Amino acid sequence: MISRDIFSNLSPFDHRYSLRENEYDKLEKFLSEKAKIKYQARVEVALIKVLVDRGICPNHYLKEVEYAVAELTSEEIYCEEKKTRHNIRALVNVIQRKVSPEVKPFVHLTATSFDIVDTANMLRFKKVTEEVVLPELIEFEKKLMQISLAEKKTIQIGRTHGQHAVPITLGFALAEYVSRLGGRILAVKEATNQLRGKFSGAVGAYNASSLFFSNPADFEKEVLAELGLSPATHSTQIVEPEFLTDFMHSLVSTFSVLASLSDDMRHLQRTEIAEVGEYFEEGQVGSSTMPHKRNPINYENVKSLWKAIMPRMTTVYLDQLSEHQRDLTNSASARFLPDIIIGLYLSTSRLNRVFAKFAVNHQQIEKNLNINKNLILAEPLYILLASYGHPAAHETVRKLTLQAEKTGKSVQSLAENDDKLNCYFDKFTKKQRAILREPGKYIGQAVERTEDVVVSWQEKLNLGRIK
Amino acid sequence: MISRDIFSNLSPFDHRYSLRENEYDKLEKFLSEKAKIKYQARVEVALIKVLVDRGICPNHYLKEVEYAVAELTSEEIYCEEKKTRHNIRALVNVIQRKVSPEVKPFVHLTATSFDIVDTANMLRFKKVTEEVVLPELIEFEKKLMQISLAEKKTIQIGRTHGQHAVPITLGFALAEYVSRLGGRILAVKEATNQLRGKFSGAVGAYNASSLFFSNPADFEKEVLAELGLSPATHSTQIVEPEFLTDFMHSLVSTFSVLASLSDDMRHLQRTEIAEVGEYFEEGQVGSSTMPHKRNPINYENVKSLWKAIMPRMTTVYLDQLSEHQRDLTNSASARFLPDIIIGLYLSTSRLNRVFAKFAVNHQQIEKNLNINKNLILAEPLYILLASYGHPAAHETVRKLTLQAEKTGKSVQSLAENDDKLNCYFDKFTKKQRAILREPGKYIGQAVERTEDVVVSWQEKLNLGRIK
Amino acid sequence: MISRDIFSNLSPFDHRYSLRENEYDKLEKFLSEKAKIKYQARVEVALIKVLVDRGICPNHYLKEVEYAVAELTSEEIYCEEKKTRHNIRALVNVIQRKVSPEVKPFVHLTATSFDIVDTANMLRFKKVTEEVVLPELIEFEKKLMQISLAEKKTIQIGRTHGQHAVPITLGFALAEYVSRLGGRILAVKEATNQLRGKFSGAVGAYNASSLFFSNPADFEKEVLAELGLSPATHSTQIVEPEFLTDFMHSLVSTFSVLASLSDDMRHLQRTEIAEVGEYFEEGQVGSSTMPHKRNPINYENVKSLWKAIMPRMTTVYLDQLSEHQRDLTNSASARFLPDIIIGLYLSTSRLNRVFAKFAVNHQQIEKNLNINKNLILAEPLYILLASYGHPAAHETVRKLTLQAEKTGKSVQSLAENDDKLNCYFDKFTKKQRAILREPGKYIGQAVERTEDVVVSWQEKLNLGRIK
Amino acid sequence: MISRDIFSNLSPFDHRYSLRENEYDKLEKFLSEKAKIKYQARVEVALIKVLVDRGICPNHYLKEVEYAVAELTSEEIYCEEKKTRHNIRALVNVIQRKVSPEVKPFVHLTATSFDIVDTANMLRFKKVTEEVVLPELIEFEKKLMQISLAEKKTIQIGRTHGQHAVPITLGFALAEYVSRLGGRILAVKEATNQLRGKFSGAVGAYNASSLFFSNPADFEKEVLAELGLSPATHSTQIVEPEFLTDFMHSLVSTFSVLASLSDDMRHLQRTEIAEVGEYFEEGQVGSSTMPHKRNPINYENVKSLWKAIMPRMTTVYLDQLSEHQRDLTNSASARFLPDIIIGLYLSTSRLNRVFAKFAVNHQQIEKNLNINKNLILAEPLYILLASYGHPAAHETVRKLTLQAEKTGKSVQSLAENDDKLNCYFDKFTKKQRAILREPGKYIGQAVERTEDVVVSWQEKLNLGRIK
Repeated sequence: MISRDIFSNLSPFDHRYSLRENEYDKLEKFLSEKAKIKYQARVEVALIKVLVDRGICPNHYLKEVEYAVAELTSEEIYCEEKKTRHNIRALVNVIQRKVSPEVKPFVHLTATSFDIVDTANMLRFKKVTEEVVLPELIEFEKKLMQISLAEKKTIQIGRTHGQHAVPITLGFALAEYVSRLGGRILAVKEATNQLRGKFSGAVGAYNASSLFFSNPADFEKEVLAELGLSPATHSTQIVEPEFLTDFMHSLVSTFSVLASLSDDMRHLQRTEIAEVGEYFEEGQVGSSTMPHKRNPINYENVKSLWKAIMPRMTTVYLDQLSEHQRDLTNSASARFLPDIIIGLYLSTSRLNRVFAKFAVNHQQIEKNLNINKNLILAEPLYILLASYGHPAAHETVRKLTLQAEKTGKSVQSLAENDDKLNCYFDKFTKKQRAILREPGKYIGQAVERTEDVVVSWQEKLNLGRIK
Repeated sequence: MISRDIFSNLSPFDHRYSLRENEYDKLEKFLSEKAKIKYQARVEVALIKVLVDRGICPNHYLKEVEYAVAELTSEEIYCEEKKTRHNIRALVNVIQRKVSPEVKPFVHLTATSFDIVDTANMLRFKKVTEEVVLPELIEFEKKLMQISLAEKKTIQIGRTHGQHAVPITLGFALAEYVSRLGGRILAVKEATNQLRGKFSGAVGAYNASSLFFSNPADFEKEVLAELGLSPATHSTQIVEPEFLTDFMHSLVSTFSVLASLSDDMRHLQRTEIAEVGEYFEEGQVGSSTMPHKRNPINYENVKSLWKAIMPRMTTVYLDQLSEHQRDLTNSASARFLPDIIIGLYLSTSRLNRVFAKFAVNHQQIEKNLNINKNLILAEPLYILLASYGHPAAHETVRKLTLQAEKTGKSVQSLAENDDKLNCYFDKFTKKQRAILREPGKYIGQAVERTEDVVVSWQEKLNLGRIK
Repeated sequence: MISRDIFSNLSPFDHRYSLRENEYDKLEKFLSEKAKIKYQARVEVALIKVLVDRGICPNHYLKEVEYAVAELTSEEIYCEEKKTRHNIRALVNVIQRKVSPEVKPFVHLTATSFDIVDTANMLRFKKVTEEVVLPELIEFEKKLMQISLAEKKTIQIGRTHGQHAVPITLGFALAEYVSRLGGRILAVKEATNQLRGKFSGAVGAYNASSLFFSNPADFEKEVLAELGLSPATHSTQIVEPEFLTDFMHSLVSTFSVLASLSDDMRHLQRTEIAEVGEYFEEGQVGSSTMPHKRNPINYENVKSLWKAIMPRMTTVYLDQLSEHQRDLTNSASARFLPDIIIGLYLSTSRLNRVFAKFAVNHQQIEKNLNINKNLILAEPLYILLASYGHPAAHETVRKLTLQAEKTGKSVQSLAENDDKLNCYFDKFTKKQRAILREPGKYIGQAVERTEDVVVSWQEKLNLGRIK
Repeated sequence: MISRDIFSNLSPFDHRYSLRENEYDKLEKFLSEKAKIKYQARVEVALIKVLVDRGICPNHYLKEVEYAVAELTSEEIYCEEKKTRHNIRALVNVIQRKVSPEVKPFVHLTATSFDIVDTANMLRFKKVTEEVVLPELIEFEKKLMQISLAEKKTIQIGRTHGQHAVPITLGFALAEYVSRLGGRILAVKEATNQLRGKFSGAVGAYNASSLFFSNPADFEKEVLAELGLSPATHSTQIVEPEFLTDFMHSLVSTFSVLASLSDDMRHLQRTEIAEVGEYFEEGQVGSSTMPHKRNPINYENVKSLWKAIMPRMTTVYLDQLSEHQRDLTNSASARFLPDIIIGLYLSTSRLNRVFAKFAVNHQQIEKNLNINKNLILAEPLYILLASYGHPAAHETVRKLTLQAEKTGKSVQSLAENDDKLNCYFDKFTKKQRAILREPGKYIGQAVERTEDVVVSWQEKLNLGRIK
């Protein structure tokens, strides 16, 4: 066995990021080379299974192949591949070597390499998504829901362009991600369910299987059904690329949502803003020379991994092009596709850890809210003046804000003391006047919407009720 | 009016590719700056419409605004924008200038700029897709179906790795694109239907509209319903980016299918292959110095435009990130999104022209098929030998092919004259033996599958039956 | 003449971004379709010029061609192209139509289309860079130098991870961009100088020109020399792509520097930080509903245009691949290359406008510096303790900072009152002790380095001395 | 030691592509996690070395640190990092643990983490390029030169648009890559030489080192000089990103040249063209079901790896943006940068193996050349007619080629029998007439240029003379 100190590995996914053993173990079962071969062998077993079911070979042939597959090792395959220079032929040879002479001919019968390769890939991508990625995403979705609800009334200044706009609540701000991540979870689920296999031979026309079966398309369906997959309406040597393209898009676009959230958090953690924080473990060092620092390293890591992974979607689009019934220029590139899954999973897992200890600095949130207290009410003032018939409300209020900045007085007091505006104030309702006096009341439907968003996604994702 | 010789324009979309007037006219209605403003104004009208419907303003206010919007010009807006330095404020000012003093306050009431901008963009992207892009794609899908059926029995060598593999039919090869394009048409439709608008104010919490309405989310729904849109579960200053991201992905991934088809055609048009061709118009010049050339310029153009457009998906992913309740770094970039629509449309339209005169060289297809006649049957021979119990069928046949190459004899005759293989031949069925004698029969289900694929997509796309 | 209201154009570069007439005029001369044709015609003239210089045709042939070229219009070419379906053949036909019968044969003699197209493109890219892009970049570099020097002593907190680190000066922070932009200006210059032309015929082997000249490579050099260009060591139908690839990389990587600067400025302009600002014009509107807002729209615009343009580098890399002596799949895509130049130029020009009115809020800079005054000195304290032999300086100081946060006392006072640390303090030099008392002194070489960076780049770029 | 079966690894670079031990060994020394730590430790040693040279600590301190560094292991560092949660602090702690108490304070003195990290990365990227990548590229360049010269007179049809154009030689076609790859080798060398280190502390202003040294910039220079590096004019916490950006661009653009060559070879290997081939090893299997196939799998692999790697340049451009004196969002992403180096190296190494057994099918080249023998001469005929005054040479010849296609006669014979053209033929020189009779003579300067290109690049790259 070719064994290696993991620090001798080249890819960060094989040293640094695989050191958390629970994370690595989950991924390894689906995405290592060993797992890939295991899944390919599983497709070969499905083939024999159908041959048996159809009465083409006796039942014990299946047992033999299952046994052979159970005991084969990656090393054997690679060793054989050195001779054949062809990985699937190597797999077939190794299986054949382990079965009786009469079973040999039925191994891989009518199949072309990519019937095995593509089907196995789709299957393991489906499985790892259902068993590893989606549960992690859903766990994070739930955490977001919990914190959104917990902070639904925490009044926070809304920010556009990095500038104070009008108030919302922290819960409402997080509900953005409940909604966006919820939508992506649905998208990932749907794209995963659409992953297809194939068993249509070297050029997709069932040339080989037609030698034996009167309706080879049915045969294909049966083999794929063994694996929980179905075929597309057409295939060449490979499955139509779009199912995989959509799947990868669903992952990459989900990753972008996490990156956007991480950017928000990084900035809310800036020294001058300091509204949220990452919990620092006892003994953790923020900087090698600046012992006082509390860096948002986890959010930075998520953003950074996203920068490493997102551009690879271009590779996926490039791989939609394949000449005629297939060229092989999507082979090496496809070997790196798992990176997209790994990157997304590790980042979600990281955010789950961080949000388990999500720290909110309520004092600081309130302090920041008050920085522009005097100006924040410019918007409702303008809107109310306008709605009560002021002919140039926006311009009038804009000038008041400039005056407010100069004098340090509040826009509202300037407005109330303005003879030309007085007449409008008289028309305002009680509630409207109350809002003009207290920015913290000008939060619209932030609380109600937070609740609605959480409930709505709990239902759409069948999560049950969380509080 | 700032008018300009089109050749003074900078973008190829505004000179070279807008010269086909019918194409340009279709796009201009939705994607020019003029159209953008028209759609923004349409959102402002929808707002007034709902205010009227709710009894907040009298009916004639709507008439006034409709009239104002009908007569406003892009120039006016831009002229006003020079003062305000803000495009939506400019639009609002211009509309207000054209209505009675009592109507003014209701223009843009409670709206923030991006309620208008985002909603208008989603609306025009939806419309241009439904009215221009999808019809063009469907027309091309139909053309592909027709040619697939017409050529369903044209036996053609299947090619993998650019190498002769086993035979299919030309119709089956084209059915690949019937299926892939069919799938993409569905994806584009679905993504288009998912495009959402918003009317939730500056930070998404309905701060302003809450001043007037007890359930501003209903108000939002009503305004959007006027335009045939609906809101997302959450919005900030902008609509959740993922609806647009999915939409753009559907377009880009569709474009890749066209690029793959174009690559296939380019290569089938190579001098040495010459199986298909583009019809050349009388007087058309293939090369400035080589008068004999017939270049696949249309397919090259499609591939090339795809290379220009596809990488822009990266911009779309980048724009999924927006700080807090929004930063504006997706504004200038979003102005270029129409390019993706334009590129896809122009390429589809071009392919429709080319495929209207799709030329097949049947003689050449047959000639190419025969190049490796002797070798093609290696696959069925191997498979039959294997299935009838030969312990090393693949290796045996591989050696026969090497021998065939050296001696010029056919694999089949070498096999038949091989004493060790004779015994297997006796077991083959009649049909199996027939296939070994005539490569043209080894096409599997190519004909049937072509028919099935076409029928299947006619149903899924509701195209009616085409023959 | 096909004339059009510019708001009917599709590309933002042809409406919104071409409205500043001085900017548009500068670009149009090189990058419009009209300009492209003008440059192509200029190459045809260079060809005739060399034929005259070599005595192959009489002098007045050149005059005739020059005259023909001077009066041809884009319309004529496009009109002719409708017949020929080939743009360069159209150009040649139009020129030939305007000259005497005896001159006709010498127009385009031995040239292939891409001798003209590629050479003309390289030439106009070179010219627009030298005459428009580089002057704009250099103007901005000078502005950065001036502000760096002006603010070289403005003590500002250094920020890493968005967290306060140790102090620098604002001038030093801007000197980063003096240095990075300076480096890019050199890179752009060098890449521009490396742009090459070609005149080697249809497949690069001088097939046609060899019919007439004994050393056609010399002939190529002479034609290109007329245009201020030189050939590569090899060409096919096209110039080796790498010269253009390097050139585009130099532009894109320059754009990234501007985007990074813009991000810095956006964040320094955040409401809570507010250290710098964009000057707002009287009457300018920050938000359609929030009259008090001062949004960093120009920096957002630069970042956003960069997001639209940067990914197009992928197209440039894709276009490095061209089959055999050339396929045409780089033709349509290359038509969009000017966008990269336009995007960079417009952003630089915008930054020049913004930095002409660069506003620094010195009070706020000082206020921010003091937020963590007590902690900032943790770094020098740790380093001094360590250097004077404290065995666990980093850990000790890290704990002091936690204590400082809890007690509100300064790290330094805690340290001074720590009996175990006292003995170390005695060893510190006067200067070292002074720094521990005043964070503002712990700026290292910020002032000196600012000066050095500016002087160094003034020399490297031959800018003369700026103060 | 955490050891692992390599097939349990996730990245193809750590299983499939690291199985060729000689290739893996070469890369591992520079690009594994172990190597990274080794290089970081080497920077710590350089620091002590300069402290010793400056007389700040006695000589034996250096010995102690060197010894400590020599015996530290990756495991120890990672084990320590579990506590510190900071990798460089972990390294420092481990080194300190291994030295005498009096040495401890001088370890890492004045350094910030990224002084070590960035400098170590630049150093190992420089080393791996100089010692592994460049030698491999140069070996391939030499192979290309040898084959170009060997085939300089092998007349081959030139192809544009996949269509037969005019003849060249195979050597000339390969000389394209001699020239392009030569240019890239120079670019890689130059970019490698430009890689810089830094030792300017936490925010680049030498805050910490200023506590001890009067000119800390000199101190930085001395430390870097120990490692063969130099600083940039400015740094923040990190080295200016552009040096790395340019370096990665040089690698990616080199990779594109290999991908373009591989595409050419793939297509020349098409069944119908079959001009070149990959040597197949005895026993190698081309297809699991089609024993006769000879697939261009190596060229496909190179193209495919390029598709996986090239888009990562987008990550590099994204990493040019870093907020203020640095955010950490370039940390995780930078860990994947070695992939670009690995991908390029493996592809070059693969091409070296393939070209060591480069197979040319001269018969097939000649056969293909003759397919359009009759038409090929259309170009010189048109050019000669034009130059001797025919007023519509291009159009006349274009019509002749259509006639030639219909009648099967050669363009030349049609032309000679055309009364209107006779008069022109009389004027042609002997050499010109000879060319019109034999397409094989119409190769321009293909032979001479091949020689020139090879000689020119042998000189530029100092390769000595190859024949």
